[in-house]
Amino acid sequence: MKAARLYGPGDIRVEQVEEPVAGKGQVKVKIAWNGICGSDIHAFLTTVPKYPQGTTPDPLSGESLPVTLGHEFSGTIISVGPGVDEHKWAVGQNIVVEPLVSCMKSSCPSCSSGSRNLCPIHNFIGIGGWGGGLAEYIAVDTQYIHALPNNIPLDVGACVEPLAVAWHSVKRSRFAKGQSALVLGAGPIGLFLLKVLLAFDPNALIIVSEPTVLRRQSAIKHGATHVIDPTHSNVEESVMKLTGGVGVDVAFDAAGVQATMVAAIESVRTRGTVANVAIWEKTAMIDINRLVMKEIFITGIASYDRIHPELLEALASGKITGVEQLITRKVAIEDVVEKGFLTLVNDKDTQVKILIHP
Amino acid sequence: MKAARLYGPGDIRVEQVEEPVAGKGQVKVKIAWNGICGSDIHAFLTTVPKYPQGTTPDPLSGESLPVTLGHEFSGTIISVGPGVDEHKWAVGQNIVVEPLVSCMKSSCPSCSSGSRNLCPIHNFIGIGGWGGGLAEYIAVDTQYIHALPNNIPLDVGACVEPLAVAWHSVKRSRFAKGQSALVLGAGPIGLFLLKVLLAFDPNALIIVSEPTVLRRQSAIKHGATHVIDPTHSNVEESVMKLTGGVGVDVAFDAAGVQATMVAAIESVRTRGTVANVAIWEKTAMIDINRLVMKEIFITGIASYDRIHPELLEALASGKITGVEQLITRKVAIEDVVEKGFLTLVNDKDTQVKILIHP
Repeated sequence: MKAARLYGPGDIRVEQVEEPVAGKGQVKVKIAWNGICGSDIHAFLTTVPKYPQGTTPDPLSGESLPVTLGHEFSGTIISVGPGVDEHKWAVGQNIVVEPLVSCMKSSCPSCSSGSRNLCPIHNFIGIGGWGGGLAEYIAVDTQYIHALPNNIPLDVGACVEPLAVAWHSVKRSRFAKGQSALVLGAGPIGLFLLKVLLAFDPNALIIVSEPTVLRRQSAIKHGATHVIDPTHSNVEESVMKLTGGVGVDVAFDAAGVQATMVAAIESVRTRGTVANVAIWEKTAMIDINRLVMKEIFITGIASYDRIHPELLEALASGKITGVEQLITRKVAIEDVVEKGFLTLVNDKDTQVKILIHP
Repeated sequence: MKAARLYGPGDIRVEQVEEPVAGKGQVKVKIAWNGICGSDIHAFLTTVPKYPQGTTPDPLSGESLPVTLGHEFSGTIISVGPGVDEHKWAVGQNIVVEPLVSCMKSSCPSCSSGSRNLCPIHNFIGIGGWGGGLAEYIAVDTQYIHALPNNIPLDVGACVEPLAVAWHSVKRSRFAKGQSALVLGAGPIGLFLLKVLLAFDPNALIIVSEPTVLRRQSAIKHGATHVIDPTHSNVEESVMKLTGGVGVDVAFDAAGVQATMVAAIESVRTRGTVANVAIWEKTAMIDINRLVMKEIFITGIASYDRIHPELLEALASGKITGVEQLITRKVAIEDVVEKGFLTLVNDKDTQVKILIHP
């Protein structure tokens, strides 16, 4: 079968690999769509933790390069391995994969306390090994799959994984109905956050700060109450004007740079929360005295852990809408580098989510 | 009457000033004891926010230098002004002052929402003006006083203000019975935190990291379960050993330097809280990715707001014990600079709380 495999930075090859077979407790899935994630782009450009490097095997999967990429995917069960409950998982069932894999040892404080995303060696199907969504098929343990409700199309299903990141972020930030939010950065993560914030409160005041005009337009289209251009306006002053001098309840840093973190700290209300959902390339300089004067919380948020069921229910019941509008391009797997990865590197402002069809 | 007044950095003078009279809604208090606070020391050494500077009047008190110092004090009511409920406040009643003064405008988000400590122009009696505890008498609005329970001596009463800082810190950190804590720095703030943590849970695992041997001994004497010398041991490794590899639930940074903040972040468990209770002189370098990987919260905590009643109840009921042992010296007001301020500057490791008697 065809699979897009990472050989190292700048080297992704679409090639023929052996088709997987559903082992014990597994189903074989014909993949419908797979989204390219910002982390995949980073791994294409440079070396990134979790993606195997050189010949060093990943501590959890035991695999080293090359690995099949793709952890945001949907598909249809085409065969069921031994030991699988066939009343639950039948051929023809559309599913999405929750790709987080962790050590699950009872001695691991995270795995034994419902936070597998914080397991020191956790990884993801399609990053650390185990096959991936950028292939025609995958054999996957049923513990990692969720049935896709009938009224959710498979392309939207491929967006469930990034939506899960946003859903988990909003929950961890303690954002609640009736509150206001600032989202710094309207790239894919920022826009998915916007969708989820509106699911939590359709009438919430949601301000988006984003330097790129196309992305600001995108934020307005997807429901932001207000947008700020931080290259022309002072974010803090704008937020204070829009919130009657109080500040927002939660500020999400979806950009991960010094300027957005400072803007988040200054724009959040006293005792509010700054939630970082970005991966940083540099160390942040934080004026701790500002945290004291405002008694605010800064937290970092990582992926998700088993929140897919409630997210899928929110999607199925129409609480989250317009996700299909975040899919800006659909590409065949043969063109994944040229029309997928390179487009997201060179033309990122016009793109949100690019889906690959194998 | 005698009063110790700040004229500027390095310049505190004990001099004769006019004795105050209890105005409308005020009582006149004969001051028993006043503790010297770390902030007072800073103001003696350099310029510090909240302490008036030069001829610029404080925006709330309208006063400029010189101001009478002292915001940690106890005393006895000796006269009652017009409009005071004499059934509540009678001559002879021992009291403590909660010195926080804020704007109380309905347009102030903090003052109108129960967080006067976050009012942008809040200040303290004995810092920004309004008289202070380093004097023979003070006239003070009854809204700022609390009755000192009969079983608490006046010298312990003078420690209620720093205990309130610690009490508020522990509450804001969300430390709860059954949890563990790390306190970084065993100066006065660290030791008061220790007292309060033990009031919240007498059996809590409380680790104190402190480079000075005398202070480590002090921490053990006052109830720390374990002490770490960070100049000889890796704090994170020691904490992990003591907590079975999990980390502490809450880490209090009571030192406010880069090394303690990093140790706090690394020593706290996943989803735990780092609570900064120090004032920083430099900007902190924070690896935000570590907050992401552990989903921890960092927060800053400021003074208190109307938590004195529950604190006084905890003191009166014996939940907080041995506070008198934190009083390491008692000095007459005439000697406040030599035997008070200069001792705390030059011989700080042997001292915790120095009380002044006017």
